[in-house]
Amino acid sequence: MTPDDRIHRAQQLLDAKTKPIGSLGRLEALAARISALQRTARPQAERARVIVFAADHGVAAAGVSAYPATVTREMVRTFAKGGAAVCALARAAGAELEIVDVGVDGDVSDFPVRAGTRLVDAKVRAGTRNLIDEPAMTEAELTAAVAAGRAAVDRAWAKGVQVLALGEMGIGNTTAAAALLAALLDTDAATTVGRGTGVDDDGLARKTQAIDRALARHRAGDNPTAPWAALASLGGLEIAALVGAMLRAGEIGLAVLVDGFIATVAALTAVRCAQARSLNITLALFFAHRSAEAGHDAALAACAGAGCDATPVLDLDMRLGEASGATLAIGVLRGACALFTMDSFADAGVSGPA
Amino acid sequence: MTPDDRIHRAQQLLDAKTKPIGSLGRLEALAARISALQRTARPQAERARVIVFAADHGVAAAGVSAYPATVTREMVRTFAKGGAAVCALARAAGAELEIVDVGVDGDVSDFPVRAGTRLVDAKVRAGTRNLIDEPAMTEAELTAAVAAGRAAVDRAWAKGVQVLALGEMGIGNTTAAAALLAALLDTDAATTVGRGTGVDDDGLARKTQAIDRALARHRAGDNPTAPWAALASLGGLEIAALVGAMLRAGEIGLAVLVDGFIATVAALTAVRCAQARSLNITLALFFAHRSAEAGHDAALAACAGAGCDATPVLDLDMRLGEASGATLAIGVLRGACALFTMDSFADAGVSGPA
Repeated sequence: MTPDDRIHRAQQLLDAKTKPIGSLGRLEALAARISALQRTARPQAERARVIVFAADHGVAAAGVSAYPATVTREMVRTFAKGGAAVCALARAAGAELEIVDVGVDGDVSDFPVRAGTRLVDAKVRAGTRNLIDEPAMTEAELTAAVAAGRAAVDRAWAKGVQVLALGEMGIGNTTAAAALLAALLDTDAATTVGRGTGVDDDGLARKTQAIDRALARHRAGDNPTAPWAALASLGGLEIAALVGAMLRAGEIGLAVLVDGFIATVAALTAVRCAQARSLNITLALFFAHRSAEAGHDAALAACAGAGCDATPVLDLDMRLGEASGATLAIGVLRGACALFTMDSFADAGVSGPA
Repeated sequence: MTPDDRIHRAQQLLDAKTKPIGSLGRLEALAARISALQRTARPQAERARVIVFAADHGVAAAGVSAYPATVTREMVRTFAKGGAAVCALARAAGAELEIVDVGVDGDVSDFPVRAGTRLVDAKVRAGTRNLIDEPAMTEAELTAAVAAGRAAVDRAWAKGVQVLALGEMGIGNTTAAAALLAALLDTDAATTVGRGTGVDDDGLARKTQAIDRALARHRAGDNPTAPWAALASLGGLEIAALVGAMLRAGEIGLAVLVDGFIATVAALTAVRCAQARSLNITLALFFAHRSAEAGHDAALAACAGAGCDATPVLDLDMRLGEASGATLAIGVLRGACALFTMDSFADAGVSGPA
């Protein structure tokens, strides 16, 4: 059976349950899709793991963020210690938390780590190069960062994790993501740039200019919309790790809750990389929330255009990143899975429509 | 301090946490409000109880529903047994489930009850009278149904429940709720009527006509927009119980997740009844989701006009009722509470904006 056939069969099961057909709206669509993904009439999202990939960005030196670049490392310390938003939300959701250093500028290995949290050293390089002037990553660095993402998924899969919430931390990474998205969509910075952590008007102007300069540099090369090359040229180590994680999750059929703007750009990149290999990973991707970041709607629309069900689960005007939206959506996905434990009209002896 | 002062103080605490100010959007507003309601900097929603009030409606005889009236009782059996959507969602959320019969037509006392679920007999009458021709309830019946709602909240409060998800079951009750809403808003059926469980075009025409006839009857009396009188004349026993529950929760400061269309109409009625007694219960009301039922936006707008924060938590195109949306939103409210466990910038030693 094709994925669409499996979704259709799952929807038929839901249609027999004791409720008017379609009356649970989007929750039914989520339920049918995770059933199709897990190839079971009893899908599960109980065991959940949040993974935050962290890395620094050379472009931060261009004054594109409201925060200094040291905040990436400081926030990794806060993640490890349990004090950040994603930590609080992971505890509330009963989810494990793994922080993966794929490119933080500075040592993080001695940070105290709270129980229930893991800090993984997969550092490729102490941050990317400045994408305004040169490719952010070499091919070898890109490959290593993607491999770090794939390895994180394999670790989770080996432990029986049923759903991943994937996100990122990296001062400067909305600049990289906006540049990457603009390259993939063959558009300019104005379509994809936003205020990130809250940059002011001058900072936004610097950010827009940085993206347009990076795009001009990138487009002087061959085939500028090709996803793999664009990722190396304009992405980030944590964005590459997200791409690797989503590719691996798609290959093995592990559900991923995609966080906000940056994770969605990674998802678009991953879907296009997969398509170039005739692989369809869209079934595994659940878009967790509609971010307030300006470029997110364009990124979601592009994902929908690439075959994803890109209607977000939540719409709460969040724009923090660090997998916070994805973590908050775990409970909704668990609710969707639970629908399969309902009785059918026949089981329950309930009358159908008159 | 006023409630607004307490909300402001809670928001100041959130502003000091390790995240850009306002970057968690609506989640912060929910967090600040539950903190203000519970009068603590560590609000809790861990212990959650779902309460479904069930009753029948005389107006069902007019062919206003897609389902026969016997389904109310059959669904109460399914709730007790654990097979309905709200049961599945309550299990997924780790919430208790209480079903309160305030007016089911037929005996429900012998139904098997699953562990973790309670079936409470508070039957006032075997369904309301047909509101097309006469008031749905007498004053005494209304008072009894409201008292049943209040008692359900007191039971939960006595057990240490921290958040309630309130909903209803009753074939015909979108007709009653649409009539009640139209009376409160001094409008006609066309503004408030919807397809409920999925009535066809002929049924929708019958439903609209039933509501307009009921409104004409009701408006022949004095003061037709007065909430208490409108509730008796056009409401239902389960709607009255919801009103009583929300009034009591507002009095004691217990958080309520308000389900969809019918529960929102009950919330509007409760807020207006409270205002008539110079009591403000709006702080306790959290609107769980935006229903696909046609009149829900009008009901939410009226709640906002009455001082509620009526932006719904979820927007998933659901329209089932039975507290399903409210139950699904419990996890989001828990996430909101968890934000207060985050470190501040000072706690974490994280740099602020550059």
